[in-house]
Amino acid sequence: MRLTSRYRFSASHRLDSPAMSPEENRKLYGKCNYPHGHGHDYVLEITVEGQVDENGQVVNREALDALVRERVLGGVDHKNLKADISEMAGSVTTTENLATLIRGALGGGWTLPARLAAVRISETARNTFELEVA
Amino acid sequence: MRLTSRYRFSASHRLDSPAMSPEENRKLYGKCNYPHGHGHDYVLEITVEGQVDENGQVVNREALDALVRERVLGGVDHKNLKADISEMAGSVTTTENLATLIRGALGGGWTLPARLAAVRISETARNTFELEVA
Amino acid sequence: MRLTSRYRFSASHRLDSPAMSPEENRKLYGKCNYPHGHGHDYVLEITVEGQVDENGQVVNREALDALVRERVLGGVDHKNLKADISEMAGSVTTTENLATLIRGALGGGWTLPARLAAVRISETARNTFELEVA
Amino acid sequence: MRLTSRYRFSASHRLDSPAMSPEENRKLYGKCNYPHGHGHDYVLEITVEGQVDENGQVVNREALDALVRERVLGGVDHKNLKADISEMAGSVTTTENLATLIRGALGGGWTLPARLAAVRISETARNTFELEVA
Amino acid sequence: MRLTSRYRFSASHRLDSPAMSPEENRKLYGKCNYPHGHGHDYVLEITVEGQVDENGQVVNREALDALVRERVLGGVDHKNLKADISEMAGSVTTTENLATLIRGALGGGWTLPARLAAVRISETARNTFELEVA
Amino acid sequence: MRLTSRYRFSASHRLDSPAMSPEENRKLYGKCNYPHGHGHDYVLEITVEGQVDENGQVVNREALDALVRERVLGGVDHKNLKADISEMAGSVTTTENLATLIRGALGGGWTLPARLAAVRISETARNTFELEVA
Repeated sequence: MRLTSRYRFSASHRLDSPAMSPEENRKLYGKCNYPHGHGHDYVLEITVEGQVDENGQVVNREALDALVRERVLGGVDHKNLKADISEMAGSVTTTENLATLIRGALGGGWTLPARLAAVRISETARNTFELEVA
Repeated sequence: MRLTSRYRFSASHRLDSPAMSPEENRKLYGKCNYPHGHGHDYVLEITVEGQVDENGQVVNREALDALVRERVLGGVDHKNLKADISEMAGSVTTTENLATLIRGALGGGWTLPARLAAVRISETARNTFELEVA
Repeated sequence: MRLTSRYRFSASHRLDSPAMSPEENRKLYGKCNYPHGHGHDYVLEITVEGQVDENGQVVNREALDALVRERVLGGVDHKNLKADISEMAGSVTTTENLATLIRGALGGGWTLPARLAAVRISETARNTFELEVA
Repeated sequence: MRLTSRYRFSASHRLDSPAMSPEENRKLYGKCNYPHGHGHDYVLEITVEGQVDENGQVVNREALDALVRERVLGGVDHKNLKADISEMAGSVTTTENLATLIRGALGGGWTLPARLAAVRISETARNTFELEVA
Repeated sequence: MRLTSRYRFSASHRLDSPAMSPEENRKLYGKCNYPHGHGHDYVLEITVEGQVDENGQVVNREALDALVRERVLGGVDHKNLKADISEMAGSVTTTENLATLIRGALGGGWTLPARLAAVRISETARNTFELEVA
Repeated sequence: MRLTSRYRFSASHRLDSPAMSPEENRKLYGKCNYPHGHGHDYVLEITVEGQVDENGQVVNREALDALVRERVLGGVDHKNLKADISEMAGSVTTTENLATLIRGALGGGWTLPARLAAVRISETARNTFELEVA
């Protein structure tokens, strides 16, 4: 049984790589490189997988929500992905890098009986980034 | 080719396990254990998989809809999941248990050429439960 | 300036009028009269109207949310509209009657500078009930 | 006949009033006052009203889209509402103030035969701000 | 009390006015003038207004649905708006003209106690056309 | 890392197989066989899979969008699937056949470093057709 649980958070970011010139950054990232940044209402989906227990649950929803709140949402909601997340200081705040970071943050402190199966983030309604967890 | 077809039904339920005390039930299920129950507009997704036939279809939509209506929707739409579904008398009406029940109800009477590949239920917009069919 | 704020709650109900026979009830309310009830994920929209203040707000969102939670959501979320709401004991739990009740509950304790302008409830995605407040 | 046309833009902002102390700002605006800002995918709805012409249109959609792009979207999409919009330098970047600004920007250069009837902005799916144009 | 009820239908059309040259048509209607037509999944919203009756209803939903099905949906669903609707033979199949036609079709045979208050059609998620009924 | 990117297009079609009699076509395809056709607002989802590069991207979004526009959207948007797509002349314009065609059109000219992993089309909100790319 797989359960996918959805969360929302609002954050700001600007795509800008220190490895490239301003012109190259503007060419590669387009509007996402505008100097003062912009933001999104991200949708985060966490998928867990496991057996249904005797209480009829694959995972305790309250425990899952608490874990996601503590290890992910508290650090990104109403934050600037660059200025507020120390782990992103050396990388570009694309949703791909954010998804990798979230998978690590969740996996590192995973204490639930069901296993973490996938992390998915939609930056806008037009795209979704997904990482399966082996 | 996979086809996922979506259906909606409204039902009421209350999460309450006979194996636990009232206090334990309230602690585990929270608001879902409130004494007089509540309800949801469930979204059911049925995925079938197979070859596209000479008419350009992986499955006849009308036949699939009729099967889902007869074996699932007729039994749950505008019903109380506990009082109206005899197979749930001995279990808790979580969406996990409901998904397992629906997979069995569909699989038992499956008469279509495409195979049943997955059963997915969203209780609310915040969660989705999925069972792959091996 | 008008602000419409959205809230969600899950509740169960059964449409059944004591003024009619079982056959009449079944004929008028159809599936909504099934004996053990069903439920919905209701969407509640509260519209307030007023001048934008020096802080750039027509109403303080936190104050509005607290008022709606206290006077409405606490009484209906994860509840049975008939068994749990004493004011509905003598009426049928249609969304029309629920909207009227909510307008009264909000209007009775209105303490915000912006006036209450409208109450809107969607029972499902297929319908919306609206009461303007004169 | 009324036509409501929808547009989307992504922007960042931070709610912070120069008339208040840091503590007051934090208390009034909550998470929206976090120091490095956050952002949203705003939905903008422009409503025009008029007679249907001989071509069956209340307004030429392409002309309306061009006007909204030129006078509104170009200035806010992928921008920081404070740093990039000079008219907001002296005010707080709430959606109320943004709606007022957009109404002015559109109304000032209105060249279409149908009249501008309303401006609506949803900051997130949970709220909508509306200004009727008299 | 106002009730807005939503319906969906799929139809094809092509915007082409006999009063203009092919070049003018292409210039005015753009892609909507492509020679073989295209189509949409239209959303139709019918708003009725009236007093809530002793059964707790502003209108009987089944009666409203039957009226809309008989007088509107049967004529437009899975149809070509030009070839299948005789009343559109002399006009362009814009959503403005379609809304006017539907208001007439509904108003002409209106037999419900609540009055018809508004007709709204969304051609796509990006636009909505609305006619208030005086 | 998987990225799913969403696109929309509006098209018309009619399900009608030359291998069957008019009666058989009507029986098999129902309303979709109505003589003058109808249409939909299709949602196309393209999933690519690969390593995240040093710029934080699994694929350059602009390059992916350009490819989908050039090889798919230009040929189907505001078109009639039968009259305007030569490759569909000999087949029925079901969404299954359309998905197969799109997978071929994309795969044939694939020039991006990330591999094409899946093609998904929703004809309406009630169904989704999916082809994994091996």
